[in-house]
Amino acid sequence: MQETKKGLEGIVALDTSISFIDGMQGILKYRGLAIEQLAEMSYDSVSYLLVNGMLPNDQELAAYSFRLKTERRINGEMIDIMRVCNYGTEALDSLRTAISCTAQMDHENDNNSLEANKNKAIRLIAKLPTMLAALYRCKKGETPYLPDDNLSHGANFLYMLRGEAPSAIEAEAMEKDFIISAEHELNPSTFALRITASTLADVYSAIITGLCTLKGPLHGGARKGVMEMLDEVGNPENANAYVLHKLASKQKIMGFGHRVYRTGDPRSRIFKEMARRLADEKGDPTWYEIAESLEHAMYREFLEMRGRPMYPNVDFYSGVIYKYLDIPLELATSVFAIGRVSGWTAHCFEQYMDNRVIRPRAHYV
Amino acid sequence: MQETKKGLEGIVALDTSISFIDGMQGILKYRGLAIEQLAEMSYDSVSYLLVNGMLPNDQELAAYSFRLKTERRINGEMIDIMRVCNYGTEALDSLRTAISCTAQMDHENDNNSLEANKNKAIRLIAKLPTMLAALYRCKKGETPYLPDDNLSHGANFLYMLRGEAPSAIEAEAMEKDFIISAEHELNPSTFALRITASTLADVYSAIITGLCTLKGPLHGGARKGVMEMLDEVGNPENANAYVLHKLASKQKIMGFGHRVYRTGDPRSRIFKEMARRLADEKGDPTWYEIAESLEHAMYREFLEMRGRPMYPNVDFYSGVIYKYLDIPLELATSVFAIGRVSGWTAHCFEQYMDNRVIRPRAHYV
Repeated sequence: MQETKKGLEGIVALDTSISFIDGMQGILKYRGLAIEQLAEMSYDSVSYLLVNGMLPNDQELAAYSFRLKTERRINGEMIDIMRVCNYGTEALDSLRTAISCTAQMDHENDNNSLEANKNKAIRLIAKLPTMLAALYRCKKGETPYLPDDNLSHGANFLYMLRGEAPSAIEAEAMEKDFIISAEHELNPSTFALRITASTLADVYSAIITGLCTLKGPLHGGARKGVMEMLDEVGNPENANAYVLHKLASKQKIMGFGHRVYRTGDPRSRIFKEMARRLADEKGDPTWYEIAESLEHAMYREFLEMRGRPMYPNVDFYSGVIYKYLDIPLELATSVFAIGRVSGWTAHCFEQYMDNRVIRPRAHYV
Repeated sequence: MQETKKGLEGIVALDTSISFIDGMQGILKYRGLAIEQLAEMSYDSVSYLLVNGMLPNDQELAAYSFRLKTERRINGEMIDIMRVCNYGTEALDSLRTAISCTAQMDHENDNNSLEANKNKAIRLIAKLPTMLAALYRCKKGETPYLPDDNLSHGANFLYMLRGEAPSAIEAEAMEKDFIISAEHELNPSTFALRITASTLADVYSAIITGLCTLKGPLHGGARKGVMEMLDEVGNPENANAYVLHKLASKQKIMGFGHRVYRTGDPRSRIFKEMARRLADEKGDPTWYEIAESLEHAMYREFLEMRGRPMYPNVDFYSGVIYKYLDIPLELATSVFAIGRVSGWTAHCFEQYMDNRVIRPRAHYV
């Protein structure tokens, strides 16, 4: 029997045309377009690109955005279920139940045609923000806000959480977060859902696999960890001591390092600049300064100790942005999922298109 | 970049001590014990073996079975949710929602200690049959039956479906089906859930990933396909023509072939003997004879066409047994899940124990 490839590190599991990563040079592209360029577009354009394989022209984009808006609403039956089944410390558990119910209510659930699957992709992309905001409101015993069709995908989500429209820069930050979180090759949630799709299970089942996998603190759960760390550090002056203490006691510091990127994460650079602008605009530099101090301390300590620096990953400055956007801690991983769902559905479709069941072997010990 | 390992065929993804397959010799062992030997035990013994790593002694078995029985019941709130959210053509969708709600209600949901995780394993193993039977009864507008503590795991499930205790041979067949379906190394659902577990997501999230992946017709969904095929063929005399027609029109015939077994599936041999005994006892040879005729026709045609025979896999005679046990078609994949859940939790724990995030690469094309 062959050698065990633990964690499948370095194994090329499949071919994809959805995204490209150059870990040495810190390059990320969706469908051939650099993440820096995509970050300046709307989430609607980028989710269209991911799901359909090319950017929409103006007419296509208008039709797609209109379609997403008509699908934003969730029905009263779903709200009733949310009122009954809304426990747990993390909203992700409730969101999983809500998506599972949505699948059951979708008359196209077990129709695996491309047309039906594209309809389901649109419903998922459109309804996830509404579901999450409604879960948040129901849990507080309050009535959910109806979606506002005049607002972008990101702005509308913040509106449904708060009941008032966000500022222009907040809307921009939310859109950027959704775009940059949308897709990242064979990360664990995406790889797991491609296995689900490889048995020809339906789109909702695949997306729920993605959601279940994103939950872990070594994956999407890390953003919540970053937010907790920012609270714990509390003040930029404490950052250095925090890093030294954590390293000395061999505890994990959230939001640093990546299996693939070796010279820094291009997503982190965009998020950092966005976080700096939010700090300026809001006149509150605290979270940004704590983050930057942590970043510098980590860079320096790793360079000294191991001869190579340590860089923040996507979760680090994203967590800072969530602090500035007042995203509640228990919603952090689910907000990540709202962005990621377009990449997930793209991978689901790509798997169906040229399928081979994903089934490795184990070595018995 | 390396060559793409499509489907990860032949790649050894991890080390396991849970099961061993020799695909050339047709050997399957759980924790070192041959499947033929395990099939003669109770499901309680086998699920204990899988989850805890060794067979229980008499005292341990008694305590474990008692514990399972106390955990069989589901609460009224869960029944209320089942009455509201019970759509879909497959019970698996409703079962997924019910498990997701159960996670939300479990106060140990996000406690990842071994003790809490073993409690969750017991709850999942104990409650899945009750949930599925309750979903079936609620969907028909009828009141669920309470579990009967005097009956074995398998017998009690059939009782809760029907409202009357099954015969001794039916109970034996159900127990055997759960045992033989319990574990099978890195099949797609198990591999997918190990990825979920590798992000340190909770046990329920991992099990739901397994359930989502099992649904596909190229995995657990195949049993339903076999049952549909038996109905379609209807009569042993039609079997030959059915096989010839399907092969000539290049359509898939359900329940045949396996990526790993090359000389026949040992599980299929046990199921075939069980199906034969059910046919005898019930004085109704139809389903058995249809299946055997299909098996012979497939063997012969593949030997002639491709120079090597084709063998039935685990789903084939399992589907025959489900016909004899009057398992409703829409429940087939979920019944598979009831058996598999003990193997799934065992793999989840093994992943936590010596974890490395499972994250391969893709080749950009």
